[in-house]
Amino acid sequence: MLAYILAGGTGTRFWPMSREDRPKQLVRLWGDETMIETTAHRLAPAAQDKGVFVVCGPDLVDPIAKTFGDWPDEQFVIEPMARDTAPAIALAAIQTLEHAGDVPFGVFPADHYIGDDEAFRRCLAAAESAAQDGHIVTIGIEPSRPETGYGYIHFDDAHAEGDDTSTHDVEAFVEKPDRKRAKRYLSSGDYLWNAGMFVMTPSTLLDEMERQLPAMYESFLRIRDSWGTDAQTDVLEEEFSEMEGISIDYGIMENARDVVCVPAEFTWSDVGHWAALDEVRETDEDDNVVEADAILENVENSVIFSEHSDRLIAGIDLDDMVVVDTDNAVLVLPKGSAQKVREIVHRLRDAGRDDVL
Amino acid sequence: MLAYILAGGTGTRFWPMSREDRPKQLVRLWGDETMIETTAHRLAPAAQDKGVFVVCGPDLVDPIAKTFGDWPDEQFVIEPMARDTAPAIALAAIQTLEHAGDVPFGVFPADHYIGDDEAFRRCLAAAESAAQDGHIVTIGIEPSRPETGYGYIHFDDAHAEGDDTSTHDVEAFVEKPDRKRAKRYLSSGDYLWNAGMFVMTPSTLLDEMERQLPAMYESFLRIRDSWGTDAQTDVLEEEFSEMEGISIDYGIMENARDVVCVPAEFTWSDVGHWAALDEVRETDEDDNVVEADAILENVENSVIFSEHSDRLIAGIDLDDMVVVDTDNAVLVLPKGSAQKVREIVHRLRDAGRDDVL
Repeated sequence: MLAYILAGGTGTRFWPMSREDRPKQLVRLWGDETMIETTAHRLAPAAQDKGVFVVCGPDLVDPIAKTFGDWPDEQFVIEPMARDTAPAIALAAIQTLEHAGDVPFGVFPADHYIGDDEAFRRCLAAAESAAQDGHIVTIGIEPSRPETGYGYIHFDDAHAEGDDTSTHDVEAFVEKPDRKRAKRYLSSGDYLWNAGMFVMTPSTLLDEMERQLPAMYESFLRIRDSWGTDAQTDVLEEEFSEMEGISIDYGIMENARDVVCVPAEFTWSDVGHWAALDEVRETDEDDNVVEADAILENVENSVIFSEHSDRLIAGIDLDDMVVVDTDNAVLVLPKGSAQKVREIVHRLRDAGRDDVL
Repeated sequence: MLAYILAGGTGTRFWPMSREDRPKQLVRLWGDETMIETTAHRLAPAAQDKGVFVVCGPDLVDPIAKTFGDWPDEQFVIEPMARDTAPAIALAAIQTLEHAGDVPFGVFPADHYIGDDEAFRRCLAAAESAAQDGHIVTIGIEPSRPETGYGYIHFDDAHAEGDDTSTHDVEAFVEKPDRKRAKRYLSSGDYLWNAGMFVMTPSTLLDEMERQLPAMYESFLRIRDSWGTDAQTDVLEEEFSEMEGISIDYGIMENARDVVCVPAEFTWSDVGHWAALDEVRETDEDDNVVEADAILENVENSVIFSEHSDRLIAGIDLDDMVVVDTDNAVLVLPKGSAQKVREIVHRLRDAGRDDVL
């Protein structure tokens, strides 16, 4: 199979570590690797040789190539402009057809945490096999809380017909629920979180697109005709500029005819904001995540993060707080307000503060 | 009169702005001046020409001279080592005798806030006049809260005999009281805060020292004999190294025979810690003290302070918090914990962290 890392995200919720030229997938939130490096290393053993691609906008090609050391141009699939996930995944389908024929390909967010690479690749093998049989396959995450920030996958407890023991029929993709419904989903055991990981063949995807998004399908036929020719860049630009943005969930999955899911056997987090770091990083004896030269006095359940080891963070009597220190900006907030970091970024944009964006 | 700025303090409670080579009196907590500059400018009109001196240890001479631009060596009185306030003030007495004879001199902390320079100098004039009559004069502050962190002056409501209408007899110096007594002092109206500002003649001070601290008195006779000679430095060093440290309050004032006070007609603060900044600085509409390039979202009653204008502090949903950003250290704590900054500094000392001390 081929694997595509969807790396178009801007990740404003990890500001000030994430910046316009260094979105979340290019941040080192733990260890020595950026999130996109970790994602690529996890996918490489499951994909063909040179079969891992990055889908992103033109501005991120250089920073991403740099984070990998020597990532060649051929491994990038460039979206001329952001049009949400359906067009990004259709580009991956075209690239797969041209590069390897009608073989399964998977798409994966660049900036999620996965706790067990081996288990992940076992799920991927099951997904690849089901994709070869013509299914669209999604890898779903067993919910651990009544989260209202994710979409859900309603699946059939019985195994999918004709498949091995890892896959289940998907009855519905469900958009972000309210709290009450999220609780019901959690207790029913029939729902998984939609983590945006899909495996399918190009023909399966393009057939669904022809049926559900015919205008977009026509665009991608023209894009496919230009693929690898001198006209490719111009055609892409032209088609994307006219295209309406739509997500794969809303544009394809909700009404697709044949979707199956593979429940994940690994821990997962989308690491959606600073307060989520304790889901994916070791904590100290006071339940703090500390990635800094720090001196802490009675600090609990907090995130203390510094970009530079030569700056000291001192905290006294803090509980459930986030302190982030970077080259030119410091952020302080309670964990419960972690989603509001976006608002700060929007205000900084409105104020033209390019120096800290 | 002559005026002496007692500048030996280390001011650990304003870390990380205050450092070993930049104690609180050398920090710019508001405006363009360091605290010691403001103190000197306030005293200059009340003192003789070249009659303002700084009393400090040898390590602080250069940094203090630098903050003043061109403060000459003759205006420093150097304590070879810290021995608390009684020896520091006795040095001021010797210097006064040698420089101007037995004329009144005043001693003043380098790092306090005074809200009205004119009113301060009116109090000083009354104090000088009473000092000429042989009193030890202290300028006391009308208490505004039942503070347990200061000493108190119990004074006689009637005016001191033979003096003008500004002075009162002091009945007792009282050490830091517990909360209950502090409340009683506050409501009685018969107590003032002891702010460490004293005016007297050298002979008055030395007479009291001879009576109460005879060994120290003998030392200062030897120091006086050497004053202005080649032996001065060696004698000072020798006498101070043998001398026991003691405060002027405990060593002299509590048992002095003739102390009067001048109640202050100005607002005052010792600006003892970060949380006290709102007593002396203008606050914004959300009661924040902001000395930083800051972006604040629902931040109230907080202190947001940055050493450098090219670093941004972002705060979200903070109440009663302190955030201080410097070259190589960031401090975050609730206002109510401001006294604990000392503990962090002590821990850093124990850890040998000279890089941030």
